[in-house]
Amino acid sequence: MRNQLSAAASLASAAPRIGLHRSTGPSRAWEIRTVKPVTYTVRLVDDLFGLNSTDLVKAGQTQRVSRIRRFVVLDAEVDWYHGDRIRKYFDHHNVETRFCVIRVNEQLKTVDTLLDVCRQLDEFGINRRVEPIIAIGGGVLCDVVGLLASLYRRGTPYVRVPTTLVGLVDAGVGAKTGVNFGEHKNRLDTYFPSSHTLLDRSFLATLDSRHISNGLAEILKIGLIKDLRLFELLEQHGSELIETRLQAGNALDAVAVEVLDRAIQGMLEELQPNLWEHKLERLVDYGHSFSPLIEMRALPELLHGEAVTVDMALTTCLARRRGLVSRRDQDRIFATMRALRLPLWHPVCDPATLIAALRDTVRHRDGLQRIPLPLGIGQAYFANDVTDDEIAQACDDVREEVCRA
Amino acid sequence: MRNQLSAAASLASAAPRIGLHRSTGPSRAWEIRTVKPVTYTVRLVDDLFGLNSTDLVKAGQTQRVSRIRRFVVLDAEVDWYHGDRIRKYFDHHNVETRFCVIRVNEQLKTVDTLLDVCRQLDEFGINRRVEPIIAIGGGVLCDVVGLLASLYRRGTPYVRVPTTLVGLVDAGVGAKTGVNFGEHKNRLDTYFPSSHTLLDRSFLATLDSRHISNGLAEILKIGLIKDLRLFELLEQHGSELIETRLQAGNALDAVAVEVLDRAIQGMLEELQPNLWEHKLERLVDYGHSFSPLIEMRALPELLHGEAVTVDMALTTCLARRRGLVSRRDQDRIFATMRALRLPLWHPVCDPATLIAALRDTVRHRDGLQRIPLPLGIGQAYFANDVTDDEIAQACDDVREEVCRA
Repeated sequence: MRNQLSAAASLASAAPRIGLHRSTGPSRAWEIRTVKPVTYTVRLVDDLFGLNSTDLVKAGQTQRVSRIRRFVVLDAEVDWYHGDRIRKYFDHHNVETRFCVIRVNEQLKTVDTLLDVCRQLDEFGINRRVEPIIAIGGGVLCDVVGLLASLYRRGTPYVRVPTTLVGLVDAGVGAKTGVNFGEHKNRLDTYFPSSHTLLDRSFLATLDSRHISNGLAEILKIGLIKDLRLFELLEQHGSELIETRLQAGNALDAVAVEVLDRAIQGMLEELQPNLWEHKLERLVDYGHSFSPLIEMRALPELLHGEAVTVDMALTTCLARRRGLVSRRDQDRIFATMRALRLPLWHPVCDPATLIAALRDTVRHRDGLQRIPLPLGIGQAYFANDVTDDEIAQACDDVREEVCRA
Repeated sequence: MRNQLSAAASLASAAPRIGLHRSTGPSRAWEIRTVKPVTYTVRLVDDLFGLNSTDLVKAGQTQRVSRIRRFVVLDAEVDWYHGDRIRKYFDHHNVETRFCVIRVNEQLKTVDTLLDVCRQLDEFGINRRVEPIIAIGGGVLCDVVGLLASLYRRGTPYVRVPTTLVGLVDAGVGAKTGVNFGEHKNRLDTYFPSSHTLLDRSFLATLDSRHISNGLAEILKIGLIKDLRLFELLEQHGSELIETRLQAGNALDAVAVEVLDRAIQGMLEELQPNLWEHKLERLVDYGHSFSPLIEMRALPELLHGEAVTVDMALTTCLARRRGLVSRRDQDRIFATMRALRLPLWHPVCDPATLIAALRDTVRHRDGLQRIPLPLGIGQAYFANDVTDDEIAQACDDVREEVCRA
């Protein structure tokens, strides 16, 4: 009984002291304490646009209405391949839709694109909390629509249907939204997860193989920092996964499902306790210390996952010089990157650029480097003492490695 | 003992079930549940820029640093009156500052203004969570800087120093930020309170009397919906409060302090339990059902508080027709509005415009009107059944009242 009571007491004291607190004494001051509850779901589904599926029309539908209305932001390329069946689906379910078809890429990930969509949304008009915006497209589209949803009338719900692999395992399942500004990637951004994310891998069937590789880079990241088994799946089947595009029904189906499942589970395990990045040491920032500037400087040459891989190759060399990754593990990592058809290097990478990139990242991480560095394969730690010399040396190492291959 | 236990048990069940929940069964699905804690303080201070005061340099300072750096967004007019002492203050405390002086008004409350400030912020460079942006200006400036702070690197802390009365009692103490877009007021906006708000009424000494009236409109609102005593203070002293500008040291000092105190307390009581407007019935929306469109259509003629007063006059007449406000109370309310030098009417108010305004507000309130309507003075309720005829009738009533006066 005593144990029960003391557990209850500790629970009570751990609960946030929410409320409006007025200071006592002569000074007139108030303290406002509250919490914002956030819940969202991520689900793997098959045949999302099959006429019998109601997952998408029901997502975010919280009240009975005479007619369902949805504002749908659709990637132009996805429209080309899948527009007919998507439109048939909404017609079949008698949904009043307005399609906003947009072209996006990293260079169009701008405030202007966001405002264009906003203008069309205003024309259509939606109720504030009960007519979720639907985003169908890749990571960039999900990020832009997510930022608009977080800003529109101080937040309107949205539903993500990622159509690329990087969308399925990364941009579509996390909480981040954003647009680029100036030279800075995602400089204007928020944490605002979609209420529902519906993952249908059939979209990958029409994705070019470079974009499959792009998504595999983020999966590789999860493997390298926390999941040796996931890394080994990529090591063994990487090339075939690209060929078969992670589709259902072929010989590699079970591997594809396990890869997706482990990648999403690994990502969400890291995000859930730290959704607002209260803690700036984040394992999922692996590959994201130098890459933001690399990606922006190399535009339009590198896709996001490619820039992340360049960063991971660099930091693998750096960790090897520190004795934290063996030569054999480095070889395995580089061989897997190559099997995944990912670049280890890009000409914008000179020591000066990399040092500048780290300087901005340090600002982003409040004055400390907090660089995730690999410990072998499947584990990582945070370094705060990486020197300019180490960066220059690692830069040489990768270049040499690339020339040698 | 049993009571204690059951109270503890109910506390435990009320606690949100936060965590990462994986669905059981064949479907692969995840539910992410978490809460974001938010705390902020609001404080009335005297002589904020006195050289001995450390309130402002200490606000948001969470770690020891060799040199304090602050990006300060300053209203151009405030700069003209107070720029010297503000600069001396930061110099005295050896703060490395970058001043970003901007002109703002409702027409400049735009994405472009926000991006201009963002560019200068990028040039100066700040650490993400430990170098709060300082906003010194009126409600519009606080709203724009607040929105930028909520977007910059997914949220950087900021400190508000409101310099107008509407800033002191409304825009500066709430959680809302925003810019206008198209014809819509605050269409792009967030909930993101400053970590610290420091209220120094000495800035009101240089404020023109129209802007004093503008702030008194929001105070009147709090009086009308929930605080008869506050209304009576305005009824008795309204005109003198404008003359003396709520300054310390004069005969009306005690009244001014009580007015500010009750207005802020009343506002925060309404906000704290509903900071994210989970509940769309909000008493503090009184005067804000028709006014957003009135204000935008009348630009640049009406200040925010003036448009709110036009809305309050209209809904007072509407409530009187419903028998909820007596003729005598209506007379007291209108007389007080006049004593506060606030307009009861504006030529853009025709029934068609007011009906269009309500239509957009209904979207904002998810399909219901949820219009706060006064019950006498000092209480209110929510109406969902206001008809177009009632609006047209109330419109006639106010016009007649204005012509008669």
